[in-house]
Amino acid sequence: MIETVLADARAIWTAAGVTTDDVPRVVVDAGDDAAVIRFESRDGIATMDMLIEGVHFRRDWVPPRDVGHRAAAANLADVVAMGGRPTGLLVGLGLPPETEVEWVREVMRGIAEEAAAVGARVVGGDVVAAPVVTLAITALGSLQGTPIERSGAMPGDVVAVAGRLGHSAAGFAVLSRGFRSPRVLVDAFRRPEPDYGAAAAAALVPATAMIDISDGLVADLGHIAQASGVTIDLVSSALPVADALRDTAAALTVDPLDWVLAGGEDHAFAATFRPQDVLPEGFVAIGSVHEADEGHPMVLVDSEPTELSGWTHFRR
Amino acid sequence: MIETVLADARAIWTAAGVTTDDVPRVVVDAGDDAAVIRFESRDGIATMDMLIEGVHFRRDWVPPRDVGHRAAAANLADVVAMGGRPTGLLVGLGLPPETEVEWVREVMRGIAEEAAAVGARVVGGDVVAAPVVTLAITALGSLQGTPIERSGAMPGDVVAVAGRLGHSAAGFAVLSRGFRSPRVLVDAFRRPEPDYGAAAAAALVPATAMIDISDGLVADLGHIAQASGVTIDLVSSALPVADALRDTAAALTVDPLDWVLAGGEDHAFAATFRPQDVLPEGFVAIGSVHEADEGHPMVLVDSEPTELSGWTHFRR
Repeated sequence: MIETVLADARAIWTAAGVTTDDVPRVVVDAGDDAAVIRFESRDGIATMDMLIEGVHFRRDWVPPRDVGHRAAAANLADVVAMGGRPTGLLVGLGLPPETEVEWVREVMRGIAEEAAAVGARVVGGDVVAAPVVTLAITALGSLQGTPIERSGAMPGDVVAVAGRLGHSAAGFAVLSRGFRSPRVLVDAFRRPEPDYGAAAAAALVPATAMIDISDGLVADLGHIAQASGVTIDLVSSALPVADALRDTAAALTVDPLDWVLAGGEDHAFAATFRPQDVLPEGFVAIGSVHEADEGHPMVLVDSEPTELSGWTHFRR
Repeated sequence: MIETVLADARAIWTAAGVTTDDVPRVVVDAGDDAAVIRFESRDGIATMDMLIEGVHFRRDWVPPRDVGHRAAAANLADVVAMGGRPTGLLVGLGLPPETEVEWVREVMRGIAEEAAAVGARVVGGDVVAAPVVTLAITALGSLQGTPIERSGAMPGDVVAVAGRLGHSAAGFAVLSRGFRSPRVLVDAFRRPEPDYGAAAAAALVPATAMIDISDGLVADLGHIAQASGVTIDLVSSALPVADALRDTAAALTVDPLDWVLAGGEDHAFAATFRPQDVLPEGFVAIGSVHEADEGHPMVLVDSEPTELSGWTHFRR
């Protein structure tokens, strides 16, 4: 069937409900050598992620529409975390010859739906043969103000987070043990739901720094601490631990805080705000920013160093 | 070694001589969630290609630096063929665990060199584990005037081409038969040399339509014919057939015109020009544009239909 898909990649976009006529921002669509996109300003944002079957997802664990949602969300969240407004996606698809067309269409539908949720759409891409399903997604966006970089956190700032923490990691733990519930956690693993609106509001405040949590709360706040040359101190009692997380952790005899602190891929947004600013809706304060001790930036939990670092997909 | 690369993708960009300080167009580089690029206008151009080991290249046939050049050239040529000026590349790299770091660095050097040749640079990307070497490259560019689309060819226009034709296909044929020469053909297969300058000049004329030849001259002119609703008639005696091509074809007892008409991946530029316009340097006239017979767009050679279609990499 690969020939079918390869022969007419555009049929897939069309089948996925991706149309090109209704979005004035797209001047020329993917049927030409390249897409032409009219940005809202001269400052464009671009980011790319690759997802490899067996490394980042398993076809038997994640339905194809969710594969599409996850892949698109990971990139769209990066654009939003920079303070940008997503405009378009380029979708590269590598497909084994035996891939069913309907599976591919579902992936494309998921991508198109996630993009539509933030006012963006698929503007181009490439479809090729590959030994395993390979997704390369580039998200493009417009920036109207100043980018919200990782390097802007200042001592005295408030650290806050918007969105679920640890849910995807807990869902992964559940699936790894052969269970299919609790549903809320498994669903969170299959399809992250970034709070794009909260992040857009944070960009307007503006937040002094922002990141989307793909590697884990501590790991990603570590990126802000490093880039800003500050130490971040989290208050464990302020961290949101959902009931489902607590119950499942008890059943599996693990500490739910491990998932909250080290679990990635929920694509929650972590940001730092000046102390005088009101946190945008959706954000809760979880810590504070301090001078780095002896110039050594760190992330502390209750003023103590933590062993927890990142989330490394299926590889570990 | 995969961990080394995965742990710090930026080290690869740096090792490849990619620095971020000297190009004012890049506001924020790939160390953050996303790159911020200042375009020369609000119209941005974006295109993506994927290259899969075993499908699009073989590690034993193409040295890593040339793999990088080829991958970058394929995308940069697409931006230029739209009349755009390349700005930045996003590079997604999927690598098997056994890949040598130096091999990866050479690929990155090739990508960086090809980008630098047109004033662009690597602004971001992703490095992940994958079963075979997988390259996903997104090229971004600025558009200052009107895009040169495939749909603008008009009856009466002149069809012209800039760059080598059939060289890559002949190089592939030579390598397939276990030979390593003629060098000029093997090198052409390994590293295309698109005439970016000629294409940029064509955009200024402006050409009425333009495309870079990745599938083959007839196949890609077919895209222009289809999009423009015209028939294109090529004059075989006007087609440039290099001596090396003629000699090698004789040795392999094939028709060199087959390579010229159907061979892809040289990334020559084919364009149509109004009859009153002077062809830019580098372009030679090879045919003319006519009304489509009974509304059926075609590509003819010496006014006759041709059997030749596209180039489909290793798959056929």
